[in-house]
Amino acid sequence: MIDACICTIGDEILIGQVLDTNSSHLAVALEEAGIHVKRMISLGDDKVEISTILKRELAQNAIVISTGGLGPTKDDITKAVLGEISGAKSMVTHPGQLEMVHKILQSRGLDVLPSNLAQAEVPDTAEVIVNRLGTAPIMVFRHVQGGGTLYALPGVPHEATGAIPSVMQDIRHHQPLDSIRHRNIMVYGIAESALSEQIAPWEDALPADMHLAYLPNPLTGIRLRLSIYGGDAREQEVRMEQQLDQLKTLLGPLMYADTDSDLETTVGELLKAAGKTLSLAESCTGGEIAHLITSVPGSSAYFLGSVTSYAIPVKESVLGVSPALIREKGVVSSEVAAAMAEGVRRLTGSDYAVSTTGLAGPAGDECNPVGTVWIGVAGPKGTRTVSYCYKNDRKRNIERFAASALNFLRLTLQNELNH
Amino acid sequence: MIDACICTIGDEILIGQVLDTNSSHLAVALEEAGIHVKRMISLGDDKVEISTILKRELAQNAIVISTGGLGPTKDDITKAVLGEISGAKSMVTHPGQLEMVHKILQSRGLDVLPSNLAQAEVPDTAEVIVNRLGTAPIMVFRHVQGGGTLYALPGVPHEATGAIPSVMQDIRHHQPLDSIRHRNIMVYGIAESALSEQIAPWEDALPADMHLAYLPNPLTGIRLRLSIYGGDAREQEVRMEQQLDQLKTLLGPLMYADTDSDLETTVGELLKAAGKTLSLAESCTGGEIAHLITSVPGSSAYFLGSVTSYAIPVKESVLGVSPALIREKGVVSSEVAAAMAEGVRRLTGSDYAVSTTGLAGPAGDECNPVGTVWIGVAGPKGTRTVSYCYKNDRKRNIERFAASALNFLRLTLQNELNH
Repeated sequence: MIDACICTIGDEILIGQVLDTNSSHLAVALEEAGIHVKRMISLGDDKVEISTILKRELAQNAIVISTGGLGPTKDDITKAVLGEISGAKSMVTHPGQLEMVHKILQSRGLDVLPSNLAQAEVPDTAEVIVNRLGTAPIMVFRHVQGGGTLYALPGVPHEATGAIPSVMQDIRHHQPLDSIRHRNIMVYGIAESALSEQIAPWEDALPADMHLAYLPNPLTGIRLRLSIYGGDAREQEVRMEQQLDQLKTLLGPLMYADTDSDLETTVGELLKAAGKTLSLAESCTGGEIAHLITSVPGSSAYFLGSVTSYAIPVKESVLGVSPALIREKGVVSSEVAAAMAEGVRRLTGSDYAVSTTGLAGPAGDECNPVGTVWIGVAGPKGTRTVSYCYKNDRKRNIERFAASALNFLRLTLQNELNH
Repeated sequence: MIDACICTIGDEILIGQVLDTNSSHLAVALEEAGIHVKRMISLGDDKVEISTILKRELAQNAIVISTGGLGPTKDDITKAVLGEISGAKSMVTHPGQLEMVHKILQSRGLDVLPSNLAQAEVPDTAEVIVNRLGTAPIMVFRHVQGGGTLYALPGVPHEATGAIPSVMQDIRHHQPLDSIRHRNIMVYGIAESALSEQIAPWEDALPADMHLAYLPNPLTGIRLRLSIYGGDAREQEVRMEQQLDQLKTLLGPLMYADTDSDLETTVGELLKAAGKTLSLAESCTGGEIAHLITSVPGSSAYFLGSVTSYAIPVKESVLGVSPALIREKGVVSSEVAAAMAEGVRRLTGSDYAVSTTGLAGPAGDECNPVGTVWIGVAGPKGTRTVSYCYKNDRKRNIERFAASALNFLRLTLQNELNH
């Protein structure tokens, strides 16, 4: 396994103004390719600091990826340092990136200033990968001072993320990487420790060239990633498939996708395939489920809308939940969750409807502890409800409530649409 | 100015599974105290690596703060390394943290296992700050190997964040920090460059001991932070206040708060103080505004609810927008935005209502380019609308739409409630 270091450059990271997300995206891509990320370093726009750290890391790692420090402003001095440490004699203009600078500024209706033209200049020691998302080029410096190869990426997050495929392709082309293949299984509704116990016999019997990783996330559940090392591509695919078939049987309805996905995408695919529509009645989740559903491009094909009924009178007047029911059963109850889901289904005319009513925090009420949620799903085959109690803070309770509601909907759809 | 380094420890960061947010929170606190964060390093659960990096950084920085590597599982080897590099002779149990271990496990209904008891053990070179949010103690190692002081914090984000006040207090008590005071002004609705031009005469005339920083954020606008160094506390407060009064006059309605805040909190405070209620009709923002409003604890005092009308029939049937109006003016129009706001205000009986209708992407329609939004605010004094066009991707367009809608509501409330 070869080692890599990720360096993010910029004072705005060191004062905590900007959260560094580039490192994490780069790390995912490197790790999936079987490259060992040894460390990540964030450093400031300081010439000596950048030079010292990059030289040290290039001596210790086969690959160093930097982001940031390539903009047209005076703070951005990385390019000069890169020229210096790679022994460049002069700066040269890269025609492909120059064309891109003109194209991008034109599309934004801006004049091309000298500082913009300078963006297309690189040290003569650099190979350039044209950046199609911004004006600063992606630069490759091979075997700097006899050591590792440096990939210098722009710092703007969508430009850095956009550069990842080209960078990974270049790495694969130049480095003797172990062949590695991954398959993902998405699981929701079980704790990591319980899942590990449930699939232990299968996991323990895995062949030596296969490895399973547990990658948990509060909003998407647990991603199980099966990796296989080396061997013939087609043959290994078949062997993986056989193992995955066994795993799927063991998991049953705990599995919601057999590729890297999330609950809102899976729910969307189920609805779209069946030509069914969805509406929501959210109380304690306050719009979070609608936000997740509509974050999927194309969701307008199945999502009709939602009512966030934070106040009790809105539950009564808009959703038609009976005041007597609320008085009798309490607003956080199975009956009210059912009535809310049925109410919004009637109101919007959707095929399916999901509701939430609960206490996200900071406090509980006289009937229920903080963290309690009732979820309802109403559909053509009737209404079902379920309850959970989580012990997190407000923000994380809302996330868990929303994910649990999406999962309850997913289970209902899988049950009703496939039969 | 003294230097600091932040080290986050854990393999889960290096494979990109977990986004490191601890570094950013620590950086904010250190920077506000006038401490220079020189670098941030993320490293794996590897004994040699942890030892090498911590020793190197302690030799170069007065303060090193580490998070992570203190859990009860076998991966977590930081504590042994810390003992080693600080010259500890044995491990000792800290009574205060031991009591906390029992308390926390009891409250979760769990048995106390030997691995839990070991959590309260620390190297005899450590001073302990009791962690009240988790079982692993906060440890302080002063002048390790004659160099800087190491603060070792748990890695769990809310425990690390929770430890910051005690750590900062300890730093202030032991380090000769320059006195520094900050005041924040929140601004929304102007680009950073335009703002800088508008307040240039004032900024250029600032006394030498005052400094202004621009801290932009897509959801909250620009935070202007005025800092003052040294001097007598009371006297400096007065001088700052005088400068801020001038700045506020220059900013006019661009300023929405004179303390570190956000739009949803400001809107909540305005509504609460006036005893007014709010409802929402969201189309293109798909629940994002409701999500922001309800993320403020206590929002149930003024937020009645919202309708996310993604589909046109829901705009018609639930919000009562006339089909003829939609046909004639288009669904993304001033008239439909107004009708949506008025519709949800009528439906919920709220004092104020906000609506959005627009195109977040990926595509525009035949009438409007992608990134177009119409925002409506309906209230007791009538209905007003405004339109913007942003050029971002779907996710960022939704954020900008939501922030712009909150700001338009804020301006309306400030106008109508104070007169």
